[in-house]
Amino acid sequence: MHPSDNQTVENTSTKVPDPVASLQEERTNPAFPVSEMTCLIDGGQRLVDKKRAIFLELERDPNWIIEDYPNLSLEQTRERTMKKVKGVADKLLYESREDFVYRMSLMSVVDPGFWTRFGVHFGLFLGALQGQATPSQFNYWVKKGALSLGGLIGCFGMTELGHGSNVAGLETTATYDHDKDQFIIHTPTTTATKWWIGGAAHSTTHCAVFARLIVDKKDYGVKTFIVPLRNPETYELLQGVSIGDIGKKMGRDQIDNGWIQFTNVRIPRSYMLMKLTQVSSSGKVTEHPMAQLTYGALIMGRVSMVSDSANIAKRALTIALRYAAVRHQFSSGSQGSPETKLLDYPIHQHRLLPLLSQCFAMIFAGKKLNAQYESLTQKLSTASSKAQEFEVLNDLKEIHATSAGLKAFCTWTTLNIIDQCRQSLGGHGYSAYSGLPAMYQDFAVHCTWEGDNTILMLQCGRFLVSSAEKYVNGKPTPKNLSYLEKSASENKLVSCTSDDPNVICSLETLKEGWACVSGYSILRAYKVYANKLKSGCSQEEAYEASSSARLHAAKMHITAYLYHCLVESIALPECTNPLKKPITELALLFGSSMATQNSGEFIQSRFFNSKQVNILRNKVDELCLSVRKMAISLVDSFDYPDYVVNSPFGRKDGNVYESYFNLVKKLNPHKPIPYFESVIKPLLNRSLDLEEGPDLEIDNQ
Amino acid sequence: MHPSDNQTVENTSTKVPDPVASLQEERTNPAFPVSEMTCLIDGGQRLVDKKRAIFLELERDPNWIIEDYPNLSLEQTRERTMKKVKGVADKLLYESREDFVYRMSLMSVVDPGFWTRFGVHFGLFLGALQGQATPSQFNYWVKKGALSLGGLIGCFGMTELGHGSNVAGLETTATYDHDKDQFIIHTPTTTATKWWIGGAAHSTTHCAVFARLIVDKKDYGVKTFIVPLRNPETYELLQGVSIGDIGKKMGRDQIDNGWIQFTNVRIPRSYMLMKLTQVSSSGKVTEHPMAQLTYGALIMGRVSMVSDSANIAKRALTIALRYAAVRHQFSSGSQGSPETKLLDYPIHQHRLLPLLSQCFAMIFAGKKLNAQYESLTQKLSTASSKAQEFEVLNDLKEIHATSAGLKAFCTWTTLNIIDQCRQSLGGHGYSAYSGLPAMYQDFAVHCTWEGDNTILMLQCGRFLVSSAEKYVNGKPTPKNLSYLEKSASENKLVSCTSDDPNVICSLETLKEGWACVSGYSILRAYKVYANKLKSGCSQEEAYEASSSARLHAAKMHITAYLYHCLVESIALPECTNPLKKPITELALLFGSSMATQNSGEFIQSRFFNSKQVNILRNKVDELCLSVRKMAISLVDSFDYPDYVVNSPFGRKDGNVYESYFNLVKKLNPHKPIPYFESVIKPLLNRSLDLEEGPDLEIDNQ
Repeated sequence: MHPSDNQTVENTSTKVPDPVASLQEERTNPAFPVSEMTCLIDGGQRLVDKKRAIFLELERDPNWIIEDYPNLSLEQTRERTMKKVKGVADKLLYESREDFVYRMSLMSVVDPGFWTRFGVHFGLFLGALQGQATPSQFNYWVKKGALSLGGLIGCFGMTELGHGSNVAGLETTATYDHDKDQFIIHTPTTTATKWWIGGAAHSTTHCAVFARLIVDKKDYGVKTFIVPLRNPETYELLQGVSIGDIGKKMGRDQIDNGWIQFTNVRIPRSYMLMKLTQVSSSGKVTEHPMAQLTYGALIMGRVSMVSDSANIAKRALTIALRYAAVRHQFSSGSQGSPETKLLDYPIHQHRLLPLLSQCFAMIFAGKKLNAQYESLTQKLSTASSKAQEFEVLNDLKEIHATSAGLKAFCTWTTLNIIDQCRQSLGGHGYSAYSGLPAMYQDFAVHCTWEGDNTILMLQCGRFLVSSAEKYVNGKPTPKNLSYLEKSASENKLVSCTSDDPNVICSLETLKEGWACVSGYSILRAYKVYANKLKSGCSQEEAYEASSSARLHAAKMHITAYLYHCLVESIALPECTNPLKKPITELALLFGSSMATQNSGEFIQSRFFNSKQVNILRNKVDELCLSVRKMAISLVDSFDYPDYVVNSPFGRKDGNVYESYFNLVKKLNPHKPIPYFESVIKPLLNRSLDLEEGPDLEIDNQ
Repeated sequence: MHPSDNQTVENTSTKVPDPVASLQEERTNPAFPVSEMTCLIDGGQRLVDKKRAIFLELERDPNWIIEDYPNLSLEQTRERTMKKVKGVADKLLYESREDFVYRMSLMSVVDPGFWTRFGVHFGLFLGALQGQATPSQFNYWVKKGALSLGGLIGCFGMTELGHGSNVAGLETTATYDHDKDQFIIHTPTTTATKWWIGGAAHSTTHCAVFARLIVDKKDYGVKTFIVPLRNPETYELLQGVSIGDIGKKMGRDQIDNGWIQFTNVRIPRSYMLMKLTQVSSSGKVTEHPMAQLTYGALIMGRVSMVSDSANIAKRALTIALRYAAVRHQFSSGSQGSPETKLLDYPIHQHRLLPLLSQCFAMIFAGKKLNAQYESLTQKLSTASSKAQEFEVLNDLKEIHATSAGLKAFCTWTTLNIIDQCRQSLGGHGYSAYSGLPAMYQDFAVHCTWEGDNTILMLQCGRFLVSSAEKYVNGKPTPKNLSYLEKSASENKLVSCTSDDPNVICSLETLKEGWACVSGYSILRAYKVYANKLKSGCSQEEAYEASSSARLHAAKMHITAYLYHCLVESIALPECTNPLKKPITELALLFGSSMATQNSGEFIQSRFFNSKQVNILRNKVDELCLSVRKMAISLVDSFDYPDYVVNSPFGRKDGNVYESYFNLVKKLNPHKPIPYFESVIKPLLNRSLDLEEGPDLEIDNQ
């Protein structure tokens, strides 16, 4: 036969089904109006339109090309990021604060590393000024360019080589010199070196330095000082300031983290931020502890990280689910029958759809937390009596604990979602151009900064244990913990008594179940703690001994909270009638799949028995199948354009293979093998004779 | 005061405890002889010595510098790797196969990406020749340089853009041309493009291409053909061969993966590997199906990945545990008291020590699996009767299923260990120089290649379900599944009846418990499958419907298997008396911590009740404390030199901060900010006046 005959044979061999048609068929007869879901998720049509406008602006801006990121060097990445900073800084002059915050949250999905670089000045440095500077100090730094970046770019000098989470243990000193009315900023040891300081390596002129205030040999603990680092005209380092580049990180290479050492650097006394602590020229130190302010500042970052987790999860799931609707692999029928869509395999549904329900839970939890936080800061600023202030402060403590737990839980959840989505792409998930490796690497730091997740979970757990203690002692419990009343005694535990699958897996039963399990876990942690106290341990020792149980209780409480948010959203006025069914199914899938993952707790708390757990397992299978039918509409409703999804595998049109191939070719054009002459050729042409050496006479003796 | 007075004040402020002393104190009075443990782990003093010699050779070889890897570009990484290939190729001429395999397994810890690049030729290409070439074909390619790399470097052309796991679905064609006695190799579609081909982009002259054999328009399925790609003298691509670089990946940038398209490329008929299928010059096709050979080849890669998982986990745990013994954070006592060692926090013990027990379980499972595999291949080659062959083949099926499950379970476990270790370092884990980010990125692919983990787990689960079916029907069950006999009926389930913590958490009880849970899960999956069959589903449909239960059953079975391996190792003659206690505690920690993680299954199978699970939880706390005391000796016994650990945080001497700081400075020397003039200066000095435009007369109307 001749090659030209090939055609007739090929048609009989296996063919990959048309990817575009495979994805498109998922969109015929959508189970709900996709654009209404987008409105619900984004918070109304106005914000949907604004989002689209911002994404379009970015897509058309040459500094915002992102598809070639995997191929850029560290230097190229940083340079392009600084160009973005310049462009965005000008936006600040035109936009309202609310609009600008929205813009930043969207930019953080498109380029998380840019967000960090920009946020170091506008979030951390400026935040330090806003929170800790007196009004005249604030005005002074604004005139220097703190708002406009006109002459000043700031960084945030908190963490040191030897101390991260434990700010109170920092070693850098700020010693008051009466004679010159100056502070001397000094790095006494290697471990006191300021470390991880974002923007220090290349970008910044000033640093908000956390240092121990020392006046007349007395140590007043850690305060904040503005220390100039570089000459803003030449960027030469100032006398006594040593700075180095921290170099390569797991991700977020857009930001130039550096280390800083100060060797007896002198600053005017007025460069210490004095809203909360004042040092007079005579060296008199006056402190105004204002706990709620500290709370507020800590909470803000965490609150936004819940929505951020949801926003990143949306991107990962868009990629994985669209690809699952395009990719066919193996045929489940007889040999030669067409291959099955990944999304039609029950195991693939189990891999991805519970994650989709987690994403929706985070979306609504983020909304709720944001609203709570805004309402509280509003109340705090208008509180007109001590009683009002006290009430707000109590609410603030609760939101502080909840936000700590939510930050930890949601960032862990999203990190897992990204990795599961990557694995679900098979080998292609390992390509940098799938977008998922960098997503993981960039996101991973969320589990560590703004409080290490384990420590935050324990903080949340400590609040839960102390609430349980209050409850047991007859004092009022926080609003979110009303379920403790039902679970306070094992004898009073609520149980599910039905064996009807539709009762066992109903919104109401799962709500009771999660409240029961959560209460059970909290009381178990409380018992460990209380028993240790009884046996003579100190409170701290008792808390330490209960840490494993506390962490677990916090996980159960936050799961219950997320489930609650998802269920509540069904009753929201913005949740229009056609959206109620899909959200209900997502809530059921979230509640039931998390319950089967924690089946031990459900049985131990006696809410479900073994048989009911097995019934619930079957319901999870059913729910997966039912959510599978609307999976593509659900990710379509996230409404991320291809530019933002930034992965050929997540393209809206499904044209996965062509666009992946074209992208790889475009970013890796043909060029000569750079080390052929120097390495490969000598290898192929080397002599293979073993060196034998001269003959030895003794061998013949 | 004057700056010179600083010294007296600083002494009163918080000081970071001496890291060297902190680590050293862990080594006073070791709980067991560390060098004996090393012998047990490595398989005797001879192998310990050999390992040390190999590591020393690498450390002193300039091509094997690894500390600067995070700072190398893709091109630099690939060039250095090719230099290593050249050096190692010569070793092949001098060393025995056994020694060379050992060398390669150690090199894969030091530089996993090198191992892949080298393994593509020596494992995959040469493996294809060994498995599928006739003796005279094999000799032909050896003469061409297949063993020595003298003139030939091969790659392995299996996966395509549209097909990975499902090899039977590949699209590339090899059409026989009678007239010329040639095959025509052709890529008919974009999705048929050979994809991920390691070594294709830069290094290789030949490819073992998987393509559909087509003779006289009949499709005989996928066979293997050796296709020349480049002129070995010039590395110019041959006519009809198109190759491109696949570019950046999540990790393993040492290997130059590429894509290949063939456009009617002609090769002699004799370039088809004809051990299993022959095509005569008249176009007659003869097939010899030899299932056991296929099994054997599949198993080999998986078997080694269990030991590899353990070897990488050792490195991650060495870093995390040594750092945990050095790092102090927060004081658990009154203010001003010294900060607590991370390793002394119960929660940090819970984070890391169960992972350490998992590492030991993988070490012994790897040994057992290797021994089983070697003994079986030995038996297979000496089997002298059909009956013997049949028996060996049955064992091979079992080891095939077990190795599939173990590969999946162990690679997932190690990926999790790496990430948990990274997170346990706090912010420093995010530095590329901690070694953990690249370890994660390099290792992640293990969960996908040699069979996607989910698919392998399901294969293992299918074997378990079919074994359960055999058992239920009164046929003999495989050796490792004898526990099915105990759990076949819910009425006959074994339960633990004791409430003595030392009985509940004993080697024997946990062994029974894991057998019970494993049997329970397998039978549950079998029931799902059998019920579907009864309801009229096909066998394939029934398997699909049971996939979630099957996956779970496989996880339980493999956990039980790992626990078993760890317990068995206590009775080994090489496990000397002083080692029995530490291994016993590790086994108890593994068995109990995995049981509390799967408490639902233990209660559902009625092996433990709720109260016993709580008792077990307390025992896990105790075991963590007890293993904590020997944690540093245990990681010391892994006996990885600093060069191999390749992380300042895992240094043996504990001098963490100085060496981290020095490494960062060395790899990121001071240089001018490259984009100061072009980007930063214009930003700082830009005009901030808003563009107002000309006055408009209409505004005054």
